[in-house]
Amino acid sequence: METTTIKALGTTANNEPLNEMTIERREVQPHDVEFEVLYCGICHSDLHQIHNDFGHTAYPIVPGHEIVGKVTKIGSQVTNFKVGELVAVGCIVDSCRHCQHCEEGHEQYCEEFPTFSFNSPDKYLEGKMTYGGFAKTYVCEDKYVLHMPDFKDLANGTVGLAAAAPLLCAGITVYSPLRYWNAGPGKKVGVLGIGGLGHLAIKIAKAMGAEVTVFTTSPAKVEDAKRLGADYAVLSKNEEEMQAYRGTQDFIIDTVSAKHDVNTYLGLLKIEGTLVLVGLPPEPLEVGAFNVVMGRRSFAGSNIGGIAETQEMLDFCAEHDITAEVEVISPSQVNEAFERLEKGDVKYRFVIDMDTL
Amino acid sequence: METTTIKALGTTANNEPLNEMTIERREVQPHDVEFEVLYCGICHSDLHQIHNDFGHTAYPIVPGHEIVGKVTKIGSQVTNFKVGELVAVGCIVDSCRHCQHCEEGHEQYCEEFPTFSFNSPDKYLEGKMTYGGFAKTYVCEDKYVLHMPDFKDLANGTVGLAAAAPLLCAGITVYSPLRYWNAGPGKKVGVLGIGGLGHLAIKIAKAMGAEVTVFTTSPAKVEDAKRLGADYAVLSKNEEEMQAYRGTQDFIIDTVSAKHDVNTYLGLLKIEGTLVLVGLPPEPLEVGAFNVVMGRRSFAGSNIGGIAETQEMLDFCAEHDITAEVEVISPSQVNEAFERLEKGDVKYRFVIDMDTL
Repeated sequence: METTTIKALGTTANNEPLNEMTIERREVQPHDVEFEVLYCGICHSDLHQIHNDFGHTAYPIVPGHEIVGKVTKIGSQVTNFKVGELVAVGCIVDSCRHCQHCEEGHEQYCEEFPTFSFNSPDKYLEGKMTYGGFAKTYVCEDKYVLHMPDFKDLANGTVGLAAAAPLLCAGITVYSPLRYWNAGPGKKVGVLGIGGLGHLAIKIAKAMGAEVTVFTTSPAKVEDAKRLGADYAVLSKNEEEMQAYRGTQDFIIDTVSAKHDVNTYLGLLKIEGTLVLVGLPPEPLEVGAFNVVMGRRSFAGSNIGGIAETQEMLDFCAEHDITAEVEVISPSQVNEAFERLEKGDVKYRFVIDMDTL
Repeated sequence: METTTIKALGTTANNEPLNEMTIERREVQPHDVEFEVLYCGICHSDLHQIHNDFGHTAYPIVPGHEIVGKVTKIGSQVTNFKVGELVAVGCIVDSCRHCQHCEEGHEQYCEEFPTFSFNSPDKYLEGKMTYGGFAKTYVCEDKYVLHMPDFKDLANGTVGLAAAAPLLCAGITVYSPLRYWNAGPGKKVGVLGIGGLGHLAIKIAKAMGAEVTVFTTSPAKVEDAKRLGADYAVLSKNEEEMQAYRGTQDFIIDTVSAKHDVNTYLGLLKIEGTLVLVGLPPEPLEVGAFNVVMGRRSFAGSNIGGIAETQEMLDFCAEHDITAEVEVISPSQVNEAFERLEKGDVKYRFVIDMDTL
C-alpha cells in the first residue's frame, strides 16, 4: 500500500524522551478521511503507554488519542465529510463491525478488540502498529471520525478548539457512565479525583442537571471545584464533614488512577447506589464485603464509549459550552509536560498545538 | 411488662457450648403473634454470632432466625393471623416504620437499623436483647410475621415443614438479588459456593426461568449441582473450561463467605454484567480495576430482603415446590451440628426439630 512520510513526535524505547521523527501514513483509501492535526491532548494513558506500564508497548511509539484537525483529503466513497471541515478522532479507529457490541454501537467492547488510535496492530500496513495524534496528519476510516460541532468557544480562536480536544478521551470516559447511570435532575453525583477526567465530570454532570459534590484530599481543589461548577466540595480528610455525607450520593464517579481506599467512598452512597471507577489503578483495590452487601451498593467500572456516543457527547458539550481547562504547549515542550503530568502538575489537561511541528 | 419463662438453647459466653436454658418472652401485646417454634434452621451467621465474630454479641445469646411454627396466641388487635396457623419469622422482627426504606418495604435498610430476631436491643424488655428461634416459643408483632403458604412437601409431614425453614434467611438472601437483577428467561445466571445459600440459588434461579451454571472448586459439588437443577456445572480449577465460560454470564451470585478471588469470576460476566456478593467474608476482597472497567462490569452486594419480599419469596417457593435440602437434628445435637457446619460438612442446611426441647 502506498504511504506518505510525515513528521511526528514519538520515542524509540522505554525511558527515552519523545523526539521528532518521521512515520508513514497510508495514502487515502476509498473510505478514508485524512486530516491535518491541529491539536492533540495528552492523557495519562499516553504516559502509561510510552513507559510500557501495561506491558504491550511496541516501539517506536507515537502517542496521542485526543485528536482534532481539519480535513485535507477524502476517499472516493466518503460522503459525510468534506475537505476543510473540523473533525476529531478519539481512542478507537477500527473494530470488527460485526460482533454484537459493534452492532450495538459499543465498539469499545468489540469481541475482536478494537483498533486503537496508536499502539494497535495496523490493519492496513502489515506488520506495523498504528501511530497516534502527536503528528502532522492522521488517516482514519470515515466510520470512526467524529464531526466537530460548533463550540461557542471556537469563536475565540484556536485556544477554544484546543480546549475541545480532551473531550475525545477524558470527556467520553466520564460522559458515558454519567449517561448509563442516569445522572440528571434529582440525582446527587459525587466526583472523586479532580484532574483531566474529574473536572470534565463536574461540568458534564452539572449540565445533565445533577447536583454535584466533589470529594477531594486537596484544599486547593475544594476551592477550584466550585469555580468549575460543583455545588459542594468536601475535603475528604475532614472526618466530620465526610460523616455528614454518608448515604447521600446516588452515584459516584471515581477518576483516581492510583491505588486508593474506595471503602470510604462506598459509604457515601445511598442504598442501591453505584461507585464507578474510570481510572485504571495498576494494583487491585480492596473492597470490604459489608460496604457493598449492606445497602445493595455496587462497585462498577466503565471504559470510554462507542463512536455514536462520542459524537453525542461532543454535541452535548457544544450545546452546553463545555470544554476542558487546558494548558496549550508547543511540541518542544512535550517531555516537560509528561514530567509535570506524572506529578499531577497540570490544570487540567495539556494540549499540544501541532502547528509548529 | 409481664413475661413468661420458656426453654431455649443458648450460650452464656464465647467458646462455651450451647445448653438448655430458660429465657423470658413478653406476654402477648395487642399486635403480637405468639407461636410454638416447630423448626429452626442453623445459618452460618448464627455461628458467627455465638463466636462474637462481628464483635457485638451480648451474652447470654439464643441464636436462630429461620423460624417456623404454629400460632398459639394472638393479641387483641391482630386480624390477619389465627391460632393454629403455620407462620414464620426470619431475620427482621422490627424496624422504625417511618424512614424512606421502611416505607418502601425495605426494612433491611431501615435508617434506625432493624431489630433482628436475636442479639438486637429488645424494644419491649428494657435492657434486654432479643432471643432467637432456638426456643420453645417466639413472640413478634404481626407486621413482621410471615404466613407459611401450602408447600406441596408439607403433605409429607414434618420433614417438609423443616425443609422450608431455611427459606427465611438463606432463601430470601438469594431470592432478593435474583429478582432485583432480573434473573429470568433468556438470562444466564452463575452460582458460586454450593452450600445453604447456593443450593437454594440454583433452585430459585431455575424456577425464575434462567439458565443456571454452577462454578465450584469441588468435584462432588459438580455432580450434585445437576441433581439440584443446574444446567451446567464447571470445576473452577479446570482452566480450560473456565476459559470457555469467559464473558458468558449475565449475573453471578456469589455465596462464598470466606476470602476468595472474585477477579476470575468477574471475567465470566458478559459486558455490563454483575457479580453480587451475598456472603460476608471478614477480610476485604481485592478487585482488579481492569476487571470492572473493561466491560462496564459491577461488583455488588445484597443483604437479605424486606418483609413483603420475604412473603413473596415464600409464596414463589411454595408455587414452585422449592424447599432446602436439610438434615433435621434434635436439640441435643446442636453443638455437633455447629462443629460440622464450621467444616462445611452439611448438605445443605441443619434444621433443629424443637419438639424434644
